[in-house]
Amino acid sequence: MIGKITIDDVRFPLEGNAGSDAIHRDPIYSYAVTRLHDDSGLTGTGFAFTLGEGNNLVCKAAEYYGRQLQDKDIEEVMANFSDLFKQLSNDQQFRWLGPHKGIVHLALASVTNACYDLWAKKRGVPLWKLLIDLSPQQIVNTLDLSYLEDELTVGQALDLLKAQQPTRAERMPILAQGYPGYDTSIGWFNYSDELVRENCKKALAEGFTAMKLKVGSADPERDIRRAHIVREVAGPDVKVMLDANQQWNLPQAIEICNKLKSINPYWIEEPTHPDDVNAHATLAKAIAPVKLALGEHVPNKIIFKNYLQSGSAAFMQVDAVRVGGVSEFITVSLLCKKFGIPVVPHVGDMGQLHQHLVLFNHIAMGHEALFLEHIPHLQKHFVNPAQIIGGVYKTPQVPGSSCDLLVLKD
Amino acid sequence: MIGKITIDDVRFPLEGNAGSDAIHRDPIYSYAVTRLHDDSGLTGTGFAFTLGEGNNLVCKAAEYYGRQLQDKDIEEVMANFSDLFKQLSNDQQFRWLGPHKGIVHLALASVTNACYDLWAKKRGVPLWKLLIDLSPQQIVNTLDLSYLEDELTVGQALDLLKAQQPTRAERMPILAQGYPGYDTSIGWFNYSDELVRENCKKALAEGFTAMKLKVGSADPERDIRRAHIVREVAGPDVKVMLDANQQWNLPQAIEICNKLKSINPYWIEEPTHPDDVNAHATLAKAIAPVKLALGEHVPNKIIFKNYLQSGSAAFMQVDAVRVGGVSEFITVSLLCKKFGIPVVPHVGDMGQLHQHLVLFNHIAMGHEALFLEHIPHLQKHFVNPAQIIGGVYKTPQVPGSSCDLLVLKD
Repeated sequence: MIGKITIDDVRFPLEGNAGSDAIHRDPIYSYAVTRLHDDSGLTGTGFAFTLGEGNNLVCKAAEYYGRQLQDKDIEEVMANFSDLFKQLSNDQQFRWLGPHKGIVHLALASVTNACYDLWAKKRGVPLWKLLIDLSPQQIVNTLDLSYLEDELTVGQALDLLKAQQPTRAERMPILAQGYPGYDTSIGWFNYSDELVRENCKKALAEGFTAMKLKVGSADPERDIRRAHIVREVAGPDVKVMLDANQQWNLPQAIEICNKLKSINPYWIEEPTHPDDVNAHATLAKAIAPVKLALGEHVPNKIIFKNYLQSGSAAFMQVDAVRVGGVSEFITVSLLCKKFGIPVVPHVGDMGQLHQHLVLFNHIAMGHEALFLEHIPHLQKHFVNPAQIIGGVYKTPQVPGSSCDLLVLKD
Repeated sequence: MIGKITIDDVRFPLEGNAGSDAIHRDPIYSYAVTRLHDDSGLTGTGFAFTLGEGNNLVCKAAEYYGRQLQDKDIEEVMANFSDLFKQLSNDQQFRWLGPHKGIVHLALASVTNACYDLWAKKRGVPLWKLLIDLSPQQIVNTLDLSYLEDELTVGQALDLLKAQQPTRAERMPILAQGYPGYDTSIGWFNYSDELVRENCKKALAEGFTAMKLKVGSADPERDIRRAHIVREVAGPDVKVMLDANQQWNLPQAIEICNKLKSINPYWIEEPTHPDDVNAHATLAKAIAPVKLALGEHVPNKIIFKNYLQSGSAAFMQVDAVRVGGVSEFITVSLLCKKFGIPVVPHVGDMGQLHQHLVLFNHIAMGHEALFLEHIPHLQKHFVNPAQIIGGVYKTPQVPGSSCDLLVLKD
């Protein structure tokens, strides 16, 4: 039974321009952490991620949601988590503050993720193992498919999961091989050209075959110059992604993306405002065959559905610490699977739990095992940090979702 | 110069099921109020509106934004409000919590609206008068048109306002006539059929020629029965609107809206989730010629742009206490004008300042003077409440935006 519920505002200033992008020049990587203290002695830890200011507001909202878990049995909660998710996300007064977006939804992510963590710890298995061992029906019982009825009914979600069962064994070797990573920390926005060049070499030496550069400068020539540096150092076979962090408007994006074609980017990420589905659809047509990736700022399954319907993005970067937690991450992954679009979650080791979720997506849902973002700056703060060796995530073996923070160790 | 800045969390419980709809059964109408105390002795008051829980979080966020106004001169701020709006709405850490949506954006509305109120008081005129006396260039200087470049450049916004200047005089009589209202309080969700019938009669007797019923019952027959009651009492010539408050999914909406055609609704409002642009576009086609209205939960100009581009709604209900205040309300109104879609703001007297904004939209922008929502439950709490006589809003004459609350009177 869940007894005490604690919420903590934990912030980690970064060093040396790490984390900087075209929009966010001086972030303080922060977590709004929910901990569910179970009378078994186990503690479920979940969080949402923010850039500092306002992290306390996410905590306050998480406190409000968290109260609903008091005295609940985690197995009972998770047997029909769909119900709790609907109840919390549609709280009739809190709903006005979204609905299903912004601070209240970040708070829901924190609470939801704590539930999944406690569930996995209670069963004594890592989260990926818990999830792949659930039946399709048990998975669907944890999801809220409201407002998706035009694209994904409960029956269709079940069928989609069942259809993947016969071929699961073929995908299990990923557990031994590890899930590929890609390196985002070669080219933060404020890094000098020289540092970008150095970091590229380092990433290659470490075994990465994919890496990402921040673009979106006021001066597009800077973007183009730096992109060429990365391509030059990386060589023609490495996947190079470019991330504009919403910096361009549509006419700018069309112009600059066409220029960036010359370095053959694997994708261009967040070219413009994350609410602008139509602009992304127009852009995708205007710059084909260059592909778009987006999703780190898309707050819920409904907007993901609109993006998928519009055919605007070739990669969906849903983030379990932005949407309503693991539950909605799985919902969005199912939608993506239906539309044949790969899921490449935003933040890997920074989000910690995505290393579990991509394994589930691959094994149980048949998603391609593409790669997972690697941003190491917060690794040192976790009890069980993600381990990336030779450019590959080692499969986590400790029970839970790997989200316990050293600073909050009981 | 702006000295002290105070933020207040003000909540007004309602009586007798007033305010209830299909989603929000027991709201506590609340304001997150920003007051800018000028050294001239004047106080600018602005607010965002919520349904109670979490109103304190909007206040906290408004405090953060409000600090930026300390020691500023309001005329200087407003001469280029575009800059302040961009600065606040893109605060690099707070932005992560939206961007441009949810609690942070509600807070921005509160602060923005206080600026406009102080500006009008400083000039000793009601807000509508201040706004219609500004030149097109001065108006555009208060707007942030970022991410709208594909539909509305600064030059196009200027042209649009200039094009309306020669015919302004023809639209000035609205000031003497008053702006028509429509009555939303005939049919709150939890009202009995008998009370709905009585309220309809009362509204007709008061002079209203348009009224709205809450629908979205689990049992669609209840909706249909009550809609027929309203049509029967109102007669064939009164405009009857139906408001589902997001209760239906798309397949349900198609089915039920087609059934509700029989009462000839003037519009059907918020049929499904406010983030679902595609669903509204599909629905609009499926139920034509019945028209859709939406916007009370649309948080920003970018999503409005997407709705307008998709041709899904025939009426846009932008709300200056939901989007980033008066500034973004005007931006969205310009977008609507470009697309030929009328603006019918969410909440009239409850929002108080909309009575000013519809006069501006009509006179300076050439928007049709359709009607403005009337929800009287909070009138008694205002120093200068909206006056609706014979179904018509009397033009406010007191300086400012009519948003001062009795409970916060200096």
